[in-house]
Amino acid sequence: MSDLTIRPGREFFTARTVSDALAGFRPTRRTTIESVPLAAALHRVPAADVLAPEALPGFPRSTVDGYAVRAADTYGASEGLPTYLDLAGAVRMGAAPTVTVPPGGCVAVPTGAVLPEGADAVVMVEYTAATMPGSIEVTRPVAPGAGLVRADEDVASGATLITAGRPLRSAELGLLAAAGVGAVDVHARPRVAIISTGDEVVPSATPVLAAGQVRDATASALAGLVTEAGGEPVVVGIVPDDRVALERVLRDALGSASIGADLVVVSAGSSVGARDETAGAVAALGTIWCHGLALKPGKPTLLAECGGVPLIGLPGNPLSALVVFRLVGAPLVWRLGGCAAPPPEPTTRARLSRDLASAAGRVDIVQVRVRGEVAEPLFGPSALLSVLTRADGYVVVPEPATGLDADSEVEVVLYR
Amino acid sequence: MSDLTIRPGREFFTARTVSDALAGFRPTRRTTIESVPLAAALHRVPAADVLAPEALPGFPRSTVDGYAVRAADTYGASEGLPTYLDLAGAVRMGAAPTVTVPPGGCVAVPTGAVLPEGADAVVMVEYTAATMPGSIEVTRPVAPGAGLVRADEDVASGATLITAGRPLRSAELGLLAAAGVGAVDVHARPRVAIISTGDEVVPSATPVLAAGQVRDATASALAGLVTEAGGEPVVVGIVPDDRVALERVLRDALGSASIGADLVVVSAGSSVGARDETAGAVAALGTIWCHGLALKPGKPTLLAECGGVPLIGLPGNPLSALVVFRLVGAPLVWRLGGCAAPPPEPTTRARLSRDLASAAGRVDIVQVRVRGEVAEPLFGPSALLSVLTRADGYVVVPEPATGLDADSEVEVVLYR
Repeated sequence: MSDLTIRPGREFFTARTVSDALAGFRPTRRTTIESVPLAAALHRVPAADVLAPEALPGFPRSTVDGYAVRAADTYGASEGLPTYLDLAGAVRMGAAPTVTVPPGGCVAVPTGAVLPEGADAVVMVEYTAATMPGSIEVTRPVAPGAGLVRADEDVASGATLITAGRPLRSAELGLLAAAGVGAVDVHARPRVAIISTGDEVVPSATPVLAAGQVRDATASALAGLVTEAGGEPVVVGIVPDDRVALERVLRDALGSASIGADLVVVSAGSSVGARDETAGAVAALGTIWCHGLALKPGKPTLLAECGGVPLIGLPGNPLSALVVFRLVGAPLVWRLGGCAAPPPEPTTRARLSRDLASAAGRVDIVQVRVRGEVAEPLFGPSALLSVLTRADGYVVVPEPATGLDADSEVEVVLYR
Repeated sequence: MSDLTIRPGREFFTARTVSDALAGFRPTRRTTIESVPLAAALHRVPAADVLAPEALPGFPRSTVDGYAVRAADTYGASEGLPTYLDLAGAVRMGAAPTVTVPPGGCVAVPTGAVLPEGADAVVMVEYTAATMPGSIEVTRPVAPGAGLVRADEDVASGATLITAGRPLRSAELGLLAAAGVGAVDVHARPRVAIISTGDEVVPSATPVLAAGQVRDATASALAGLVTEAGGEPVVVGIVPDDRVALERVLRDALGSASIGADLVVVSAGSSVGARDETAGAVAALGTIWCHGLALKPGKPTLLAECGGVPLIGLPGNPLSALVVFRLVGAPLVWRLGGCAAPPPEPTTRARLSRDLASAAGRVDIVQVRVRGEVAEPLFGPSALLSVLTRADGYVVVPEPATGLDADSEVEVVLYR
C-alpha cells in the first residue's frame, strides 16, 4: 500500500525574494501597436509621444469679459480719476476681429474671443463703466499681457502633448481633442491566457457539485485583475492534473494565433503532486526563472519564459493566487502593454489593531479591514476566498522586518 | 454704439458652498436594473445583496498534503516516540472518499481533497514518515480541526456573498464564481448627456480652425471622467450661444428615449452672456438648485433638476469644467448608478513647495506636480488645459482655511 503515501514537497531550488522577482524577471516582450479613436483611448498606453501639430489656443485670447486696450493707455487710471477710451467696436466669439485698437481706444471682447490687433491687454468689465455712448471709463490700470493668454501659451507648436508609456487620463483626451488629434497609436491590450488546473476544479457554471468538486473561482477573479491592469483576459479553461494534458494546453496557449497570449497564467493544482506536474510541463516548454517566492501567501509561485512569452504559475489556493498575481502579475501586464510605471493605487494610513508576525527575508501580505484609523488583520487559511472579499485592502510586511507591532502606523493598499 | 458694451456678470443669487452642494444636491433618480454575466461584472454596482445558495467549500476539506486522522490518536506523538497509524487508503482529488478513518488508522489526503469520515484533523506530511508498508509514523500531535476547513467555513449557506451598492471587485467575482452565480443584477451605467455650447467651439475633428475658433476639448475629457465614474457618456454635440437652440437640445436630451439621459452636463459658453443663456434655458425646463459655487476654479457652476433628471452647468473653461465635474459630477454619476460610496481614489502625502492663498468660505482646487515628497502648485489661467495635463493631482484648500503655508503637509489626490 506504499503507493498511497503522500510525498513531502520538494524544496524549491530556484527560490527568490519578491524584490528580486520584481526587479529581475523582466521579459522584453511588448504588445503590438494599434490605432484607437480618442473616444476609446481612456487609460490606454501611447506607443509614442504625440507632438502638437499647431500652437494652442492658436490666437491671443481674452480670458475675461472686458475691453481690449493698449496697456499704456490705462496707466494712472483710478476710481477717482478714470481714463476714458474710445469704444472702437466689438469682437464676436469665434470670429476674426474686424476692428483694431487704436491709441486711446478700446474694443469690447467677451471671454474666449480673439484679441484684436493693436491691443496688448484686456481690462475686466468690473473695472470699467459705460457712462457715455461711444466711450468707456477705465478705473484700474492693467499691465501688458493682463486678461489674455498668448497664442502658444497652452501648447507651443511641436510641444509634447502626451508621453509614450503613460496611460491616458481624461485631461490628456481633452488636450488631444483641442489639438485635433482624433486617434492615438497605443499598445494593444496584453492578452493574458488564464489556465486553471486541478482534478477537483469544475467550471463555475456547474449547477450541482459532486463530492469533492469546487468551482473555478480563480479564473474569474484573475480575469478582473487582468482587466484592471489594462489587459485582456482569455479564459482558456480547466486542465486535469496531468502533465501531458497540461503541456498540450500550454503549448496551445503559447503558440496558437487564436489565443495569441502575451502572458500565460496557470493556477496550479493545490496539492504538491499537481504543483510538480505544472513545473514539469513548464520546464519542458521554456526556462524556469524562479520556482518559489519568499512570500506569504504565495510561496509555490513559478516564473518562467517560454519562447519569449512570460508564464506565471500561481499557487492553487484562490487567495494565494490573487495575492501573487496582484503583486507580480499586474505590474507585468502593465509592462507588456508598454507602461513602465503603473498608475498609483489608492492607499490609506492606519494603525494595526494587533501584532503581525513575519520572518525576516520574506514578504508577508496581510489582508485587513479598515475601520476609521484602525487596520484589523483578517486571518484564515489561504483556501478561504471570503477573507479577500471581507478585506478593504492589504498591508505589506517588508522583507527585512520580522513583524509589525500592534498600534504601529502602516500603509494599507486599498482594493477598488 | 452702446450695444457693443459688455455687461458685468450678474451676482449669483443662489450661490452655495461646495459642502452644501455635495450634501444637499441629491437627486433621487437611480438607473434601471439589468443582469450582466460575471465576465462583464467588474466594477459594476449590484442592485441587491446576493446570498450564498449553498455552503462553501461544501465539504470538509484538507488544506495540507498529509494524512487524515482522529486527532486523539496523535496525542503524545513526538520525534523521539512516534505514533504508528494504519494506512487505510487514500482520497483522490475531486472525488468522494471511498474509505473511512478507523480508530488507530489514517487516510492519505492531498491538499483540497474531501476529509474522509471518521477523521477530525489532517497531519501535514512533513510530520510523518512512511517507514513501513501499510503504516505511517506521526511525529507531532494535531488538535481537532487542524489542517482542514469546515464545510461552511468559507461561506455559510444564506450568507451575504456581495452587498448591494458596492462596486464589484475581482475577489467578489471569484466568490460569485465559486458559488455558481453566473450573472448579477446591477444598476445600468448612468447615461450622461454631454452638451457643449459656445459660438467659438467646433468639433474636435475640425482639421483647420478659422480665426477665433477652438476645438471642443471639454466633451472628450468629460467623457473620460464619466467612464471612470461608471457612467456611459453620450456626446450630444455643440450648440451655439442661443437660448432657443440650447433649450431645444436640452429638451431633447431630457426627453428623448434615444439619449435617455440620467444626467445632463452642459459646458456653458465662457462669456458671461453665454452663461446667462444657459441659465435661462435651464430655468425654463426645471428648477435651479444653485447657481454659483464657492469654488475656485468653478464659481459659475449651475446645479438643477429637470423633470427628475439632474443637470450640471459647467464653467466654459475646460480646466474649470473638469475640476467641477470631478468634484461634484463624478459622485453624482456614482450615486445615480446605485453606489453610495465611490471607490477610494489614490492619494499621497506631500509638502507644499510654496504658500497657497485662498479665501475663507471658499474651496480652492490647486493642481500640483509631485516630485518625491514635494507638491509643487501649478498656476495659470483656467483657460489652459495643459495645466491639468502637467498635474499629477490636486490639493484641496478647504472652506474654512484662508490658505496653506509653504512646507505644510497636504494630501494630494492623484489622477490615474
